[in-house]
Amino acid sequence: MTVLQQDILAQLHQLLDDSALQQLTTALGTLHPGHVADFLESLPPDKREQVWAILLADEGFEKVLAYAEGDVRLSLLQDMAPAAVAELTANLDMDDAADVLQDMPDKQAEDVLAAMDEQRRIRIEKVLSYQQDTAGGLMDTSVLTVRTDVTLETVLRYLRLHTELPDKTDMLLVIDRDNHFQGALFLSRLLTHSPDLLVADVMSSHVEPIPPEMSTHHVANLFEQRDWISAPVVRGDGYLLGRITIDDVVDVIRDEAEHSLMSRAGLDEDDDIFAPTFLTARQRALWLGINLATAFLAAWVIGWFEATLEQIVALAVLMPIVASMGGIAGTQTLTVMIRGMALGKVMDTNTMWLMRKELAVGFINGAIWAVVVGLVASVWFHNMMLGVIIASALMVNLLFAALSGTLIPLLLKRLSIDPALAGGVVLTTVTDVVGFFSFLGLATIFLL
Amino acid sequence: MTVLQQDILAQLHQLLDDSALQQLTTALGTLHPGHVADFLESLPPDKREQVWAILLADEGFEKVLAYAEGDVRLSLLQDMAPAAVAELTANLDMDDAADVLQDMPDKQAEDVLAAMDEQRRIRIEKVLSYQQDTAGGLMDTSVLTVRTDVTLETVLRYLRLHTELPDKTDMLLVIDRDNHFQGALFLSRLLTHSPDLLVADVMSSHVEPIPPEMSTHHVANLFEQRDWISAPVVRGDGYLLGRITIDDVVDVIRDEAEHSLMSRAGLDEDDDIFAPTFLTARQRALWLGINLATAFLAAWVIGWFEATLEQIVALAVLMPIVASMGGIAGTQTLTVMIRGMALGKVMDTNTMWLMRKELAVGFINGAIWAVVVGLVASVWFHNMMLGVIIASALMVNLLFAALSGTLIPLLLKRLSIDPALAGGVVLTTVTDVVGFFSFLGLATIFLL
Repeated sequence: MTVLQQDILAQLHQLLDDSALQQLTTALGTLHPGHVADFLESLPPDKREQVWAILLADEGFEKVLAYAEGDVRLSLLQDMAPAAVAELTANLDMDDAADVLQDMPDKQAEDVLAAMDEQRRIRIEKVLSYQQDTAGGLMDTSVLTVRTDVTLETVLRYLRLHTELPDKTDMLLVIDRDNHFQGALFLSRLLTHSPDLLVADVMSSHVEPIPPEMSTHHVANLFEQRDWISAPVVRGDGYLLGRITIDDVVDVIRDEAEHSLMSRAGLDEDDDIFAPTFLTARQRALWLGINLATAFLAAWVIGWFEATLEQIVALAVLMPIVASMGGIAGTQTLTVMIRGMALGKVMDTNTMWLMRKELAVGFINGAIWAVVVGLVASVWFHNMMLGVIIASALMVNLLFAALSGTLIPLLLKRLSIDPALAGGVVLTTVTDVVGFFSFLGLATIFLL
Repeated sequence: MTVLQQDILAQLHQLLDDSALQQLTTALGTLHPGHVADFLESLPPDKREQVWAILLADEGFEKVLAYAEGDVRLSLLQDMAPAAVAELTANLDMDDAADVLQDMPDKQAEDVLAAMDEQRRIRIEKVLSYQQDTAGGLMDTSVLTVRTDVTLETVLRYLRLHTELPDKTDMLLVIDRDNHFQGALFLSRLLTHSPDLLVADVMSSHVEPIPPEMSTHHVANLFEQRDWISAPVVRGDGYLLGRITIDDVVDVIRDEAEHSLMSRAGLDEDDDIFAPTFLTARQRALWLGINLATAFLAAWVIGWFEATLEQIVALAVLMPIVASMGGIAGTQTLTVMIRGMALGKVMDTNTMWLMRKELAVGFINGAIWAVVVGLVASVWFHNMMLGVIIASALMVNLLFAALSGTLIPLLLKRLSIDPALAGGVVLTTVTDVVGFFSFLGLATIFLL
C-alpha cells in the first residue's frame, strides 16, 4: 500500500461518507481493479455491499474478483444467483476463475459451473481437477507455443499476427507435433539472434518443466531461487499443460507468509478483517478453547502445591515470572526452528548441533537472568533461599524451553501437524507446566 | 525448498561428513549459486568455513554472495582481506555488491571500496548513496534504453548487436537526449507491431516511474498490486537512474514477511540459525530482559493482594487462567490489526467500526468461556462465588484485550514504533496486569 494509495483510499472513504456516489463511481472507474479490491476490503459489511451494488451496475469491474481475498470475495458473491456469478467470472483468467469457484461452498460452485457455457466449463473443470495448492491449480492455460523446425523470422511474423502477447510472456514454449514440451525460446534470445536461425538452434532445452502435482510451496521456492518470470507446467508423459507466472507465485509467497503469521494466533490468512461479528467470534472461539484447556492443565499443576502456597504466599507472587520467561525463551527457539525448517536448513545431520547450541544459549541467558531474578526476589521478600530457588527454577525452565523449542517443531512435523499452528500452544504448555512445577516443587522441598 | 533440493542438500551433507571433498567440489560446481548459498546456510560455523575455503579456491562462486542471507554473508567475509572482498564482488550486479557492502561494518566497507577500481567504486557509491530500504538502494543500473524517434526495425537491429539482454528485461526504457524518461517499449508490443512504426507510436507513456526515495515496502506493494516484472527508477527532474526487477522485489516481500514473524519473538530476519552461541545469546538476551521487566510488573500487581492470597489459596491456582486467556484473545485482535494496517486497510474512517466489532467479539467469546471457566472453578473448589468472580474477571480481561489489541498497534504506529516488534509485549503486559488485578481485586472485595 503506497502513500498515494492511502490517499486515494481515504478520498474514496470520504466520497462514500458524503454519499457522493456519482463521483465515487467515476473515481472507481479510473482505478486499477487491484485498488478497487483494496477499497472493498477496507469497508465494513453494509458499506461493502452498497459499493459492490454500485460496481455491479457498471461493466468491467469483474476483475476485482481476481484481486480480492478469499473471504472478502465470498462475502461479495454469497447472495448472487449462479448465472450472475458465471457471467461475472466469464472474463477472468482461467486460474482466477477456478480460484473463485474453489473458495465457494461445493453446492454453490456446482450451480455456477452448470450456468457456464460448455466450452468454458470444460476448461475450468480441467484446472479444477488439480488441487488449489499444486502447480496444476496455479497454472494458466493461455500459452504461446512454437515448433522447433521454424526460423526465428517465422516466429517474429507469427507474433505480429497477435495484437498482444499473454501477460508475463518472457518465453515462448517449444513443442513437437504432439504438444510435448521440447524447450523454451526466451524473448531475449529471439531478439538477439539472427532471424535466419532455427528455433531448435536458439531455444533453451535445460528449462526445468514443473509437474502439475508439485506443491505451490515448492513452486514458489523454485521461482524465488531461480529468479524465474514464468515456467512451463508439463505432465509426466511430456505433454505441455500450461504455464505458471511470477505474479501468481508472488501471491503464493505472500499467502504463505501470512499463513505463518496468522496461524500463530490460530487465525486463517483468508480471514476478512471486516467479517461480521458472529463469524469472527466463531472463527476465534476454538483457539481460545484449546488454550483454555492448556491453562487448566497449568492450574492443575499449581493445585498440587496448594499446601505449599498456603504457607508461603510469596511463591504465588513470583511463579508467573518463571513460567513467562520460559515461554519467551522457548518461543525464540521455536521461531528460529520453524523458519529454518521452512527454508529447508534444518536436517538430520545438523539437528544435534542446533539442539546443543540452543541448550548452550538457554544456559547462558538462563544464568544471566537467573542471577537478576534471584537477587530481586531475595531482596523483595527478604529471603535468600527463595532467591536461590527461583533462580534454579528459571534455569531449569530455560533449558527445558530450549529443548522443547527445538524438538516440538520437529516432532509436530513428523506427525504432519503444522508447527506454525500448534507449536506455540504446545511449547507454552510445556514451559508453564515445567515453570510452575520446578519452582513450586523446589520450594516444597527446600522451604517447608 | 523443493523435495529435490532437500535430497541434494542431504547428499552434500553426506559428502562433507565423509570428507569426500573432491566429489563435493564437483557437485557444488553443478549447482545454481542459490543452492550453494542454501548449503552454506545449513552448516554450523566450522563446516561452513571449511566449505567456503573450498569454494574460494575455485573461480565463479562469488555469485553465492548475492543469494546468501545478511548474517551468513558477513560470517563468510569477516576474515577476508579488503582486496579479496573487492575482487570477489567485482562480478556481482551493482545492487548485490552494494548490499554486501551495506551489511558490513562501516570501517570494513570503506576498506573494500578503497580496494576497488575507480570506475566500479564510483558506480557503487552512487547506489550506496541511497538508503538500502529505498527504491534507489534496490535498483540496478544496467538498463537498455532507446530513443523515441527511431523505428522498431532499428530497435530490433540494435538488440541483435547484444549477445543477451539484461536479466528480466520485459521493456526497453525510452529516453530523450538528456536521459530523461519518456516511457516504456514493452517487448510484447515490440514483437507484435510492424517494424516500420516509430518507438513513439508503440511505447507506453502511462508507465509509472518510481522515485528513488520511495520505500521498498511501497515498491513491493506496487509490484504486487500491478503485477509488474520491472519498473523504471526516475529522479524528480525526470532523469532515468535505473530499474527495479521483480526478483529483487520478491526478496523484499520475503524479508518483510520474515521480519513480521521474527520480530514477534524479538528476533531479526537476518539472524543466522547457525551463528555462534555467544552471538545468538547476546542477540536474544535483551528481549528476555524486556519481558522480565513486564513479568516483574505483573508480579508486583499480584503482590498487592498477598493478604487475599494467604486466605484463599485457590486464587493462586486459578489466576494464571484469567491472564493467559486475555493474552490469547488480545493476540488474535492484535495480529488481525497489524496485518490490516500493513495492508493499508485500517484507516481513520473505519477504526471505530473495528473497535466496536472487536469488543463485540470479545464479549461473545468472553461470555462463552467465562461460563465454562466459572463452572469448572465452582465445582473444583466447591465455591460458587469463586466461579462467579473468575467468570467476571475473565469477561473484564477479554474486553480489555479486545480494546488493547485494537488500540496498541495504532498508538505504537503513531509513536513510530514497529507494532510487530513491540505490540505483543505491551499487549501481554496489559492483559497480565488487568487479568491479575481484576480477578484478585474482585476476590478481595467479595470473598474476604
